[in-house]
Parts: sequence; structure tokens; C-alpha cells
Amino acid sequence: MAVQKSQPAPGKPAPDSTRRSEKSRRAIYDAALALVVEVGYPKTTIEGIAARAGVGKQTIYRWWSSKADVLMEAFLDLAEQSTEEAGAVPYTFPDTGDLAADLKAVLRATVDELRDPRFEAPSRALAAEGVVNEQLGRELVAKLMQPSLDLYIGRLRAAQDAGQVRPEIDPRIALEFFISPLAQRWLQHTGPISHEYTDTLVDYALHGLAPR
Amino acid sequence: MAVQKSQPAPGKPAPDSTRRSEKSRRAIYDAALALVVEVGYPKTTIEGIAARAGVGKQTIYRWWSSKADVLMEAFLDLAEQSTEEAGAVPYTFPDTGDLAADLKAVLRATVDELRDPRFEAPSRALAAEGVVNEQLGRELVAKLMQPSLDLYIGRLRAAQDAGQVRPEIDPRIALEFFISPLAQRWLQHTGPISHEYTDTLVDYALHGLAPR
Repeated sequence: MAVQKSQPAPGKPAPDSTRRSEKSRRAIYDAALALVVEVGYPKTTIEGIAARAGVGKQTIYRWWSSKADVLMEAFLDLAEQSTEEAGAVPYTFPDTGDLAADLKAVLRATVDELRDPRFEAPSRALAAEGVVNEQLGRELVAKLMQPSLDLYIGRLRAAQDAGQVRPEIDPRIALEFFISPLAQRWLQHTGPISHEYTDTLVDYALHGLAPR
Repeated sequence: MAVQKSQPAPGKPAPDSTRRSEKSRRAIYDAALALVVEVGYPKTTIEGIAARAGVGKQTIYRWWSSKADVLMEAFLDLAEQSTEEAGAVPYTFPDTGDLAADLKAVLRATVDELRDPRFEAPSRALAAEGVVNEQLGRELVAKLMQPSLDLYIGRLRAAQDAGQVRPEIDPRIALEFFISPLAQRWLQHTGPISHEYTDTLVDYALHGLAPR
């Protein structure tokens, strides 16, 4: 997702943390993302992350309570970097008054992020585990996806207020026309993703398949 | 998916196969589905399937060329049974002339199938592996999903001929408004699935989010 959570994650070191702890945090994120790609989620352990990052286990337990926490925060950090490099502002949704243009801009940035090779392998590894591990799946939704979904809901509500979306539409369901087709193509390899494709989704969803 | 492939799978025993080979085939399907749930796709082997089914490895290799083939056929067989038990006709898409009603009927049957506990664990195990294993993912699409997608495309084209869907719409993209939100809720645990939910998807997709 090109838009993400708006609050610093709990457990993130405070702004006054030393350069040494910032370096450790970065090493821990890198180790966690590399391990989940190489050995999969079930075999990734706090011990393994600590060994690869060259830190003590206690350093990790001081900041995070589980491997799921470390991984999700590492992933959020990566997504944030990727969004910024794609020229978008993380944790915001544009509102230019033109709903179609705003949706297209956000979805184009999401396509770019999904195609970022640094992002692809760890996000696939986490998503795959979430399919068979319902508890992790629900944590991924709550921590990684919900903040994005909330931004879509906010933008669609503003469009309802402006008379650009029908008032009886449930924004939580409507947003799925934008994110779910893209997610399925990417996750399940059901088709290619491109800016042209996501632009088409926006046009079809706003205007409907039936003749007007 | 409530609608599936329209041809018998290659490698399926001919109708004149003996009762004994039918019993072996059933034991092999059951063993393959149980193993992929218990140990995951990577650790499921032809040897393991043969041992659990109580047949020789050669019996499996006589009918199938790989574990992916065995699993996909076992899964197709299960989906077919589940569709029939849900009261739907496999490998067909209704055409009553009322597009919304036909889409709702198919999606309601798909919801019932996704909630079938026999279906859930093996389909999650296969889908999860398809997320990280692109080759398997593409085989799942080609063998398990494409026949359903083709039925949606055919029904949407008939609706275009009848003037119920705009002629410029690409049916391959339009069908994603029906299947992708449901797939994402189910796969990624992003929300509950119900008949009411899929009915809503059909209404929103046909009529669009913007005021008419």
C-alpha cells in the first residue's frame, strides 16, 4: 500500500535514542526481512534475527515483544521508505477535489511500491503466512492495512459530502474495488499490474459496468 | 470458485477404470489434501502421498507427473463435489437474462464453497504456496481459476450483447469486481464474507459508485 499508518509504532526507539541503537534497529530490521524471505515465517526466530543482526537477544526483547512485531515494524519502515522514494507522502491521501485523479495517483504509487524488488519478497512471505495463520493474518490487517483502509474511507466520505459518490454507498466495501483487484493480481499472479490497469479500475468503479 | 473447469482433467482414469483403481484414486486425493494441510506444500512428496494412501509410488506416477498435478486434481474434485452439494451445477454459469441475479447466484454459491470446512484448509495451503512460488501460483491460475474466469467473461459478453454492460468494458477486468474483493476478504482475513456482502458487490459494480 502506498499509504500507511499515521502513528509511530509502539516500541520504536524514542527520538533521543543514540546513533548506536539506531544502527542496531536498522540491522535488526534488515536481518528480520532477510530471514523471512530465506527460511520462511515459521522458521524465523528472535534468536536467528539477533545472530544475523549481530546484537544480543535482549536488545530485541527490549524493543519488541515477538517476531511478528519485529517483522511488521521492519515492513512498515520499508514501505515508508519506498513510498517516499516513489515521490508520495506516506500516511496521507490526496484530496484535490477530483476523486478519480486522487484515486489514480494513490493506486499508481501502490503499483510502483508493489514492483519494488526490496518490498516484494518480504511482503509475499508475510502475506503467504497470513493466509494459513489466521492470527498473524489478522495482525497484518490491523497493523499494516487498516491505516491505509481508513485513509480510503476518509477520502470516499469526503467525496460523498461533495456529491461525487452516492450517499448510500458503504465506503468500506467501495474501497475494495480499488485495492482488491490489484492485491489479487499481485498476490495470486492472476494478471499483470500497471498504471493503466489501476486507472481502468477507477473509471469502471466510479461509473459502473451498466450503461447510464 | 463455484464454477470450475469444463473438461475432465487430463490423467483422470478413463470411465472403464476398475472399482479398485477408483478406490486408489480417492485414497490418493484424500492423502494429498491431508498432507498439504498437515506439513505444507514444500514438504508434501509423492512418496508421502503414496505411503498415506496405501498405494505404490508407481500407481501415482502412472496417473500424474508431479505432486502439483495430484494436488490440483484432488482440489478440483473436491470443489466439484462441494459445488454439487451446494445445489449448483459445476462448470456452468447461469444465464436467465438478468445479469445481476445470475452474478448474485454464482457468488452466493462461491461463498458457501469457501465456507465449506473440507475445502478451506487445503485451498489455503495451496494459495499460500502460490503467493511465494510463482510457478505454482501460475499453475493454480491456469488450471483452477481460468476456467471460472472464462465463464464470467462469457456471461459478461452476453450481457454486453444484450445491452446490459457498456460495450467498451473489458470483461476480464470487470470480473475482478466480483471475485477479487471476495478472494481478498477470504485469503487475507480482511473482512467477513456473506451472501449480503456479495450481493452488494454486484449492485455497486453494475451501477457504479458515482451518482447517475
